[in-house]
This record gives sequence, structure tokens and C-alpha cells, in this order.
Amino acid sequence: MAAAEAVETMDGWYCLHDLRSIDWTSWKMISSEERQAAIDELHALLDEWDSVEEAKEGSHVVYTVVGQKADIMMMILRPTMDELNQVETAFNKTKFAEFLQPSYSYVSVVELSKYFPQKKDVDPETLPETQARLKPILPKWDYISFYPMDKRRTGEENWYALDFKNRAKLLYEHSKTGRKYAGRIKQIITGSFGFDDWEWGVTLFAHDAIELKRIVYEMRFDEVSAKYGEFGEFFVGNHLPNEKIAAFLQV
Amino acid sequence: MAAAEAVETMDGWYCLHDLRSIDWTSWKMISSEERQAAIDELHALLDEWDSVEEAKEGSHVVYTVVGQKADIMMMILRPTMDELNQVETAFNKTKFAEFLQPSYSYVSVVELSKYFPQKKDVDPETLPETQARLKPILPKWDYISFYPMDKRRTGEENWYALDFKNRAKLLYEHSKTGRKYAGRIKQIITGSFGFDDWEWGVTLFAHDAIELKRIVYEMRFDEVSAKYGEFGEFFVGNHLPNEKIAAFLQV
Amino acid sequence: MAAAEAVETMDGWYCLHDLRSIDWTSWKMISSEERQAAIDELHALLDEWDSVEEAKEGSHVVYTVVGQKADIMMMILRPTMDELNQVETAFNKTKFAEFLQPSYSYVSVVELSKYFPQKKDVDPETLPETQARLKPILPKWDYISFYPMDKRRTGEENWYALDFKNRAKLLYEHSKTGRKYAGRIKQIITGSFGFDDWEWGVTLFAHDAIELKRIVYEMRFDEVSAKYGEFGEFFVGNHLPNEKIAAFLQV
Amino acid sequence: MAAAEAVETMDGWYCLHDLRSIDWTSWKMISSEERQAAIDELHALLDEWDSVEEAKEGSHVVYTVVGQKADIMMMILRPTMDELNQVETAFNKTKFAEFLQPSYSYVSVVELSKYFPQKKDVDPETLPETQARLKPILPKWDYISFYPMDKRRTGEENWYALDFKNRAKLLYEHSKTGRKYAGRIKQIITGSFGFDDWEWGVTLFAHDAIELKRIVYEMRFDEVSAKYGEFGEFFVGNHLPNEKIAAFLQV
Amino acid sequence: MAAAEAVETMDGWYCLHDLRSIDWTSWKMISSEERQAAIDELHALLDEWDSVEEAKEGSHVVYTVVGQKADIMMMILRPTMDELNQVETAFNKTKFAEFLQPSYSYVSVVELSKYFPQKKDVDPETLPETQARLKPILPKWDYISFYPMDKRRTGEENWYALDFKNRAKLLYEHSKTGRKYAGRIKQIITGSFGFDDWEWGVTLFAHDAIELKRIVYEMRFDEVSAKYGEFGEFFVGNHLPNEKIAAFLQV
Repeated sequence: MAAAEAVETMDGWYCLHDLRSIDWTSWKMISSEERQAAIDELHALLDEWDSVEEAKEGSHVVYTVVGQKADIMMMILRPTMDELNQVETAFNKTKFAEFLQPSYSYVSVVELSKYFPQKKDVDPETLPETQARLKPILPKWDYISFYPMDKRRTGEENWYALDFKNRAKLLYEHSKTGRKYAGRIKQIITGSFGFDDWEWGVTLFAHDAIELKRIVYEMRFDEVSAKYGEFGEFFVGNHLPNEKIAAFLQV
Repeated sequence: MAAAEAVETMDGWYCLHDLRSIDWTSWKMISSEERQAAIDELHALLDEWDSVEEAKEGSHVVYTVVGQKADIMMMILRPTMDELNQVETAFNKTKFAEFLQPSYSYVSVVELSKYFPQKKDVDPETLPETQARLKPILPKWDYISFYPMDKRRTGEENWYALDFKNRAKLLYEHSKTGRKYAGRIKQIITGSFGFDDWEWGVTLFAHDAIELKRIVYEMRFDEVSAKYGEFGEFFVGNHLPNEKIAAFLQV
Repeated sequence: MAAAEAVETMDGWYCLHDLRSIDWTSWKMISSEERQAAIDELHALLDEWDSVEEAKEGSHVVYTVVGQKADIMMMILRPTMDELNQVETAFNKTKFAEFLQPSYSYVSVVELSKYFPQKKDVDPETLPETQARLKPILPKWDYISFYPMDKRRTGEENWYALDFKNRAKLLYEHSKTGRKYAGRIKQIITGSFGFDDWEWGVTLFAHDAIELKRIVYEMRFDEVSAKYGEFGEFFVGNHLPNEKIAAFLQV
Repeated sequence: MAAAEAVETMDGWYCLHDLRSIDWTSWKMISSEERQAAIDELHALLDEWDSVEEAKEGSHVVYTVVGQKADIMMMILRPTMDELNQVETAFNKTKFAEFLQPSYSYVSVVELSKYFPQKKDVDPETLPETQARLKPILPKWDYISFYPMDKRRTGEENWYALDFKNRAKLLYEHSKTGRKYAGRIKQIITGSFGFDDWEWGVTLFAHDAIELKRIVYEMRFDEVSAKYGEFGEFFVGNHLPNEKIAAFLQV
Repeated sequence: MAAAEAVETMDGWYCLHDLRSIDWTSWKMISSEERQAAIDELHALLDEWDSVEEAKEGSHVVYTVVGQKADIMMMILRPTMDELNQVETAFNKTKFAEFLQPSYSYVSVVELSKYFPQKKDVDPETLPETQARLKPILPKWDYISFYPMDKRRTGEENWYALDFKNRAKLLYEHSKTGRKYAGRIKQIITGSFGFDDWEWGVTLFAHDAIELKRIVYEMRFDEVSAKYGEFGEFFVGNHLPNEKIAAFLQV
């Protein structure tokens, strides 16, 4: 076995998926004035993040999470690892964060691979459409699904021992399944080699929650998933726009 | 290996299995008036859920769980992911929830697959019997068993690489074992691709607890389970109808 | 591969292994009167359980556990899953339970398989000796070892794909190893398909603790264990008869 | 495959590895008089253990553990499982134990196997040198490494399916690697079948910490480790003699 | 299979990776005077560590960690396991440590292997460049990535059964990938056989965070990683020099 040819990637904004559980008992124990102050401070922080997004210097979304794994999921994009860390630390110092327990987090970076043929003599990274995909303004669609994943490396099923052509072919077949869901599913791939425990994070946005299930199920029959996909935890949520936060936190 | 043909599914109500442990020490520490108020509020919520069920806009059951994994299990069905999340959040805000610790939860959707031949020219999803199975009123039988599961994808034992016909045949054999338990076991399959950590949830209801063990044991010898089944945690419980809640919570 | 023939089982009393850790710090913090009241209540409960055992309507044993996994293990048998749950809930509501942390639990049912030839024309389940084994009064021997286990189902090592005859032969060989320990080891097998995370629980009783190690070690060389046994956590303990409880809890 | 011949063992003193983390914050919160009282009580207990060791009725060592897995490790040997449990319970009831969190524990028994040829007509267990190895006074060397381990049982790599001769040969090769470290490493093997989650515990003592790493690394190339060794958690520590305890606990 | 020839290592300073999470709620609850006193004490400790580094008797770095796995990571090198333990214990006794929760730690030793040809008749360990690599002053670069790893030992993919030449060749190929990142990535390998749960720790330093991802991704295609690499948790962080600590801890 000769070493397989690595693939080059284009990398964009750094990404933090930050999931927390709400300690409702403690939240109810403080006075309604204190709760309001905490909510006001949270809104001020989210307004700040909105300004960053308007200036196209980052993006973020907030979802409520179904089931006990977490109550809220924030997905935050920033141009540097430093800014990502600062956003996280600032959030941790808020009053509201005192009523949250860490549930799960994932550190990665928006990634596009160079598996597919590009126009000759053009560095794809310089194209505006590439830049828009590397530094995406996150969709505010109704539903989200997030999960980390690896490519398998055991015995005959070793993604990293396949040659470039085979990998490209399998990914191309896979992308055809994805394209069937165009307009119904928006997918963002983030790479996490060296940053977190899995190799990639997959974030799916949908207008109809059932599409999240259907695309993941259908894709599992693609050879690239069936033979090479290893999946971590799955999280599913409903969009929580700023204007619904007060009602969500009302006790 | 060519990619295997995916199977289509019909999907019904969204489903939350919500398991909690009771903090008996704290529960005993509050006054009996406070406990009564908490129980009254819980009954009011359950009455609300009962009305939803009567209106056929959802369904639910409550069981006590045997062993330390949890003390109660709620299984809740709702037409949308949003409603499911709202039910969960409303429950989390109750007084009673202050005395509960999260134990396990599972997010899925009632699923029927299209593996088996249907009447020609009829979309099975339009049939009343299909609709009743996709939006089921949950049985209030004495015993419940819940467990999540995957189909295996390793080496020669790769469900997602089997062709459609083989999968259909294996599932048909499996269904014959199931049919032996007709009237004694009621089974509800929920799919969780993209929603939770396993691919499906299996919920079994029985009049006699031993049937839960016997069907699971017998099915393990079916090729589809023996070679392709991967199982998560198992939870077993006794039915807790509304009228027994006060006695259960009496301290 | 054709589906292997399942084996029938005879099932007896339901079984809960309930392991807890003592919070000695809190236990020391209450007054000696409160401690005495808690111990008195515990003795009253154990007396109740003793009466059940005398009436042959159940059985139980209590052991102290060595190492940090737990401090005490209760193994409780009852004719129904409902009674098992009631016993557990009643225990959870005691004062003493306020000073215990859950460590591990296991839900199962006493099981005998029908692998071996029986007298013709006799339903073995009707035999008095079978009934005594299905509804056993648990031995009060000095030492206990408990562990859950599965039969392997991977590749060539798939218990559930072996034919009946082969399984019976392997189990027969295994039983010969067991018989060498007759009088020195008492073994109770409980099945947990559909009830808990493993397929069986194995409980061993011994007069000399070293026999617990020797039988488990020797049996590991039996083909049925070497090739098909998958083991969970092991717990070992010393018998704690009622009359030693006060001294054990003395602080 | 015929069942492989089991090996006989000689078994000595029962063994508890007991690892705990110190809650420094709580330890600092009590008065220096209370801390001194707790340390005095601890010294009294250790003096008692020292007397047991002088009477050759047991042995023990105490080490501080590097890293967050634990702060102290006690390794305690006693002739019976009962005494081991009593030592543990007595320790749990001390004042000092109120400032400790359980980290890890391991229950086993000092074990010698009968793989290697012995003098004819002599029961090796009767030899004084065997007795000394089965009931060892633990060395008080500067460094300790403890880890539990299994022998692998998967597919072609199944220790328990190898015949006796092959196992003996592989272990003999392994022992040659061990002998290179004579005088620099002291190894104690304890068996834990039926007692704890792995099959054996390995405790290594060294005068120079780097020898702990070198022997484990070198042995991994021995076929018995390379093909059949499965390892659990590793713990490494520095000797904490009685006279250094006060300084270690000084805040 | 004959046992493979082990490789010799040169070992330098002992290493502790110590990761902690900050309890911001408690940190905010104390007075600003108390916080200042805690920060002053922390600075005094770090000054002491700086003196050790200036005297070339050890080295250390401090990073903030992105995501919920931890808030800070300290990587500390000392000549002996004793000193490493003392540094850890002294840190645990500080006021600041009262506001930290343990997240993860790793114990190892700086390691160089002797796989590659050296000058004849020269013991490489005596060379000044070797000594500098074994007792390194850690770089204070902007970004860090830390992860533990094993070499695989299953079936045909058994690193420890490969002969010396093959291992050397695979590692040489791997080093060529590493060399492409010269000046952009600084890598320190620490060995942890006998000390901690994995075989090695890998610590990468970068001026640009994206290089951390790219080197880990590219290396995964090297045969030594693709076939033999097993990876633990990954942690990524931003450099926290002394002068930024006050701002980081400002609430």
C-alpha cells in the first residue's frame, strides 16, 4: 500500500457549535427583575452578534434543542480562532450563562474540498461564490440537525487508503443524493482535524423537519456512508429567533 | 459495490421518549402542601395532554421504570417537531420537574417503510389504516420496553450495502416472528436518522411482562437481528395511569 | 444463512440487582437518633422482605461490595415486574435511601433454557425441581459475584447464527466445568432481553471467595465463553446479614 | 476448535487498589485544628496498617498520583476478602475521607500461574518462595504504575483458544523481557476474574520513573502483548511515606 | 510470528498537560478584592515557573481552550516525575484552583526514538541538539493542538508486529509530510507507556490555526496514520501570555 494522495481544502470561517442545558429550577428561583436583566443582557449580546453578521464579519444562529441532550444550540462563525474564543468567553461571563450547563460543543472550520474539477487556470478560492460558501451567512430556517462524523479506517474499509479518484467518485455519487434535496436542505460542512474529536461536523438546515431524517437516511445507502461513514451524536432543534427568546424563557 | 437502493418511508407523528429520575430526598423536604400543588399542576398538564389525545392531535403514555436508570418514562407523540419541543419545555417549567433529573431521552418520528408490496395504483400513505398507524393512539397496556437500535455496517455485515430485495426478505422473515405475538405485543417503530444517536427506536407494549423478553430473545435468532442488529440501552416499565400518580408520589 | 432455531425458555421470578454507594459524610452529619431511626426503618423493611421470603413469595439477599463501584448490593426476586418496582420504590422512599447514591442496577428474570433433553411427555416446567429453580430462595453464602453478559454476534463468531445442536453442545461442555464446582459455587442465571442492556445476568455465590475467581477463569477457556462470551462489569461482595447491619453503619 | 486446557493458579492475598481525589477547596475550609485531627486519625489508621504489615498479616503502600485522575493511590493486601472490605469501610468512615472523591478502584488477588515446569513431586504452593510471592510485603520504591488488562478473544487473536503449550511459550518469551529489568522493576500480578472488570491488574514499582515507561513500551513488542494484550487505564505515582503526609496535606 | 524488535527511545523532561474549566458563576460571586488576590497568587506562581524556565530547569505554556471541553490548558515540563507532581499539587492548593474543575490531564515524557540512522560511534543522546530537543523550551506560538494517540494492534494492522525496518520506513514517509510544515508547525512528541491511557501525546504549535488542521488532515493519508493511527480527544487553544490573564479573568 502506497500512501494515498491527500486532498487540499479551502477553509473559511471558524465555527463553534455550543449546546447548553437550562437549569430551570435556579432560573425560577431568582426574581423576575433579575431574570429580565439577564434576558436584556443576552439580547444586547445577540444584537452585537447581529451587527457582526450585518457587517459580514461572522454569522450565527440559535435553536432550541429537542430532548434532554441540551436546551439550546448556538452555532457561531468567526474569521479567527481568537474571535471564536472571545465570543465564547464573553457569553460565559453573562448572567444568563449562570443558569446553563454545558452539554456539548464542537470546534471546526468551514471547509470546501478540491475533489472536483475546477476551471483551468483559476484558483477556485478566489471566486466570489467560493468565498460566499467559505464565509456563509447562516440560514435562519425552521429546523437544524447537527452531527460530527469520521471516515472509517479499518481493514478493507479505509477511506484514507483509497486513491484520490475513487474518493472523488464516491463523493460525487454522494453529492447527487444531496442535490435531490436542493432548496429543501441547506448543508454546511466544517472540518475539525486537529480541533475536535471527529473529523467533520455536518450541519443541516430544513424548512420541514422530516427532510432532515429523509436525507440522512437516504444518504446512508450511498457507498461513501454505508462503508466509510462513522457518526457521532445527533442533535435536532427548532429555530429560536430573537423575538421568541423572552417567551421561551418565561417562567 | 454499487450503492444500494434506498427505501422510502412514510412518516407520522414526532415522538419524544423522556425518562427522568425522581430526587426523593428533595421531594420529601418540601411541605405536603407544596407537594400537592406540584401534583395538581402535573395532573393539569396530563389532562391537557389527554385532551390533545382525545382530539387525535397527539398521544402519550406514562410508565414507572424498573431499576436505577430512571423512575418515570413519558412517551409523547405530536404532529410537529415544534409541538414536541413545546410539550417538553412546558413540562420542564413545572414545579414537579424541579424534583426530576434527566435520565435519557430519544427523539424520533413514527415510521412505516415501503419494503412490502402494496396494492397497485394506490399510494399506501393515503389509506386510513396507514394513517392510523402513522398517527397512533398509544396503547395503555401494563408493560413497556423501549430501546434504540442501528443496522450494522461493518465488513460483510453491512445492511446498507444489501440490495433492496434481500433487505425486504430478511424483514419479511422478521415480521413473521413478530406476528406470532399478535395481540400479546404491540410494537411501534420510530425512525431517528438525523434526530438522535441511533437509527430507530423500538417501543413494545405487553399485557404480560414476560412477553417483552420472549419476543426480543426469539427475534435475536432472526438473521436480520443476529447479523445486522446493534442495540442501545433497554428500559422496562409498568404503566402509571393518572389515577395511580398520587399514590406513587406519596411520601 | 438460514435463521437459527430459537431456544425456548422457562421464566420464574423477576429479579432486581440494586447497587448503591453510601454517602458517609452526610450519614455522619445527622444525629445518632436520626441514624437509629433510619436503621430501624431499614430493619422493618428487611423484616417485611424476610416474611415474603418465608411465605415463598419472593427472596432477597444483601451484600457489602468491595471497591468504589458500590457499598451495598441488594438482589431481590419477586413474582411480578409490578412487585419488583414496588419494592424498589418503597426502598427509595426510606430515610436510609437519602444517604445512598445509585451505582448500578440490573433488571432480569430467573431463566432456565430448554437446550437439554427432558423426559418424554413431561412438560419440564411442571416438575417441582424446575419450579424450585425458577423461584429460588437465594443462598445466604459468604460471597457473591454478579456480572451481566452477552453472546457475541460478529462475523464468524455469531452465537445466534449457530444451529441449535451446536449451541446445546457448547453449553453442555460449559455445564461440565460448572459441575466441578458443585457445592462450592451456586449459580443463578437471569435473562434480561428487553429488560436491560445485556442479555443475561450471572450471579455466583461461594463459601470461599477464591472459588468465584477460579470458576470464572476456568470457564473462560470453554469455547462458549472464549469465542462467544462478552462480559459487562463485575461486582464482588461479602454477605451482610441483618444482624451485622448496625455495626456496618456505625459511625 | 476444542476447548483449550485451562491453567491452574495459586492465589494469595486479596488486593484493593483504591484511588481518590482530594477536594482541596473543602479541605481548606475547615479549621487547622480540624485538619490536624483528620491527619492524626489518618496516621493512626496507617500505623494500624503498619502493624498488620509487621505481623505479616497484610501489606500496603500509599502513592500520590500525577495528573487529574486521582491524587492518592492506596494499594492494600489482606488475607481475606472480608478484611479487605473492612479496611475499606474503616477508611471510608474517617474524617479525612470526607475530603476525598472516589476516582478508581480495583479488586483482585495476588496470582501466580502454573505455566512453567516445576520440580517434580513438589507442590509449588508449599515452597516458601512461592508463599512469599503470594503474600508479598509491597516494596516502598519511589514510583508506581498500575493498570488493569485483558487477554484478547477476537477472531484469530483468541488467547483462550490457544493451546497450553503456545500460551506457556509466549509467556516465557514475555518473562525474558521482564527479566532484563530485574532489580529496576518489581512487578506484582493480581487476578480479577469474577472480582472486577478486567482479567488482571499489573502493578509495577521502580526506582527511576523512566523504567516504568521503558518496560511497558518494550513489552508491547512481545507477541503476547502485541497480539493478545488489551489495556485499561494507566495510573502513575510518587511514593508518599507516612512522614511526608503532613507536608503533602499542608494548606 | 516472531516478536518484533523493540525500538529504543531517548527520554527527556516529564510532561503534564493539565486542562481545567472555569466556574465563572463562583468566580463572580467572590469580591473583587478576593479575585485580585487569587490573580496575584496565580501570577506569583507563574513567575516562579518563568524563573524555572529561565534557569532551563523546566518549561511551560498556558493556552485558553476553545469549546466546552476546558477553559485553560497548561503544558508543564519538569526534569523529574516528583517535580511534576509538586507543581501540580502547588497549583491545586492555590485560591484560583478553587474556581476550576478538572477537565482532562495527560502524563508523559518528551521522547525521541532511535528509528533513524545516526552518526556512527556517537551516542545521539550526548549531542547538544538532542539534549535541546529532549529538554525543550516550549514555543509561545499563537495556537496549540493537543491529542493523545495509539498505534493500532488488530489483525493485519498491528504496528507492534511490523519489523523494525518497515516501521522506520513508514515513520520516515510520515516525517516528510511533517517537514513540509517546517517553520509553520512545531511538534513535540511525548511518550506515555505506563504513565497514561494512550501511548503518545502529540502537541502542535502554530502561528496560523489553520495549519493545525491541515497538517493533521494531510498526515492522515500517510500509511502510518491511515492504517495504524488511533486518536483520542483533540483540544485546541489560543495562547494566553501572562499579560493577558487579568483581562481574561475580568468579570
